[in-house]
Amino acid sequence: MPQTPHVEKHFTASETVRDIVIGMSDGLTVPFALAAGLSGAIDSTRVVVTAGLAEIAAGSIAMGLGGYLAARTDAEHYASELAREDRETVEMPAEETKEVVDVFEEYGLSHKIAVQAAHAIREDRKRWVDFMMRFELGLERPNPSRARTSALTIALSYVAGGLVPLAPYFFLHPMRSALVGSVILTLAALLVFGYIKGRFTVRKPLRSAWQTALVGSLAAAAAFAIAKLIA
Amino acid sequence: MPQTPHVEKHFTASETVRDIVIGMSDGLTVPFALAAGLSGAIDSTRVVVTAGLAEIAAGSIAMGLGGYLAARTDAEHYASELAREDRETVEMPAEETKEVVDVFEEYGLSHKIAVQAAHAIREDRKRWVDFMMRFELGLERPNPSRARTSALTIALSYVAGGLVPLAPYFFLHPMRSALVGSVILTLAALLVFGYIKGRFTVRKPLRSAWQTALVGSLAAAAAFAIAKLIA
Repeated sequence: MPQTPHVEKHFTASETVRDIVIGMSDGLTVPFALAAGLSGAIDSTRVVVTAGLAEIAAGSIAMGLGGYLAARTDAEHYASELAREDRETVEMPAEETKEVVDVFEEYGLSHKIAVQAAHAIREDRKRWVDFMMRFELGLERPNPSRARTSALTIALSYVAGGLVPLAPYFFLHPMRSALVGSVILTLAALLVFGYIKGRFTVRKPLRSAWQTALVGSLAAAAAFAIAKLIA
Repeated sequence: MPQTPHVEKHFTASETVRDIVIGMSDGLTVPFALAAGLSGAIDSTRVVVTAGLAEIAAGSIAMGLGGYLAARTDAEHYASELAREDRETVEMPAEETKEVVDVFEEYGLSHKIAVQAAHAIREDRKRWVDFMMRFELGLERPNPSRARTSALTIALSYVAGGLVPLAPYFFLHPMRSALVGSVILTLAALLVFGYIKGRFTVRKPLRSAWQTALVGSLAAAAAFAIAKLIA
């Protein structure tokens, strides 16, 4: 069970863009919703700012370090499956050859051609194992050196995103002005961010813009309602 | 750029287990860290509980609804790439056949066998397109009907996880007792959760247990330090 998002190599968005999107999506949304929710229940910008910054610290570490460890786990999962396939090509070559034949037959090759193809592949054991990893197990080789950069990018993007909704609470008084400022600033940021994200993904930037803003708004509304109910 | 985690079909963990792990990991960690952080800076269990519940509302909606929309985006990305490949097999069959031949030659098949294999595959256009999607683009067909169940499972797991660290603040007074209770209860929960998660993934449950607890502890320590600094 790979725990990190599967990266489609042939897609145009780079891995760094993907990491920034992952971190900033949550960074813009959750601290925004938390601050808005608290501002409706507790009349102290100090509390809202303290809670917001504590959330940013917790969220960025959970996403960054959690993601780093998950990526390492994926790399180990790959390595252990690779070792198993490698051992199987030595210990049970006939079964493993039949598995290659099966993959080809599934795609409509006649038994004769499938067997010829399988025999061509098994001539180079490294290639054979590689074929099994990709086509039988559907596993892509993870890039272990990226785990650290990726974790750091996600964490920093979370922090950068999270500071946007909090900024008005630093500068605007009273609380109501800060809340209004945060809502306007964050909705604008979510729309712009969603638009850019949408251009990198399905090329429907406008829909991505309003959907991203909608998730943030609903999260903030729910946090606001719950905080109001308790306080 | 698929935005949802890539699911390895041949692995033993079911998709539901994966969703529970995703939601509960963050649910146990972030509300725990936020509550612990605030408790060091603000002497009011009401504030800690309000902030914690607001965070749970915001986080579960951001993860659940955000995940739902991302899964729909993935499904649309798949559909648009499928339509493109389908069109290409009609409009430029020679190029598309050559791409199949290239995939096979990359795996050491002789040109002759690769061409025979490619011609067998292109006899059924649906299979041909399917082959291109999987082996050229590396895309697996997403299951659109799962998006809703998956989003709900993730969100509910986040709520369930998040209520664990908050429970002591409901019942224990003064604040210090609630904090100590929350730390003990949550560390125990993280160890058990990490152990079970580790059994489902790389079969190294003990290491997964202490790593999961470590992420939660570091997130809580950072939130505590930041809240102390401001307040």
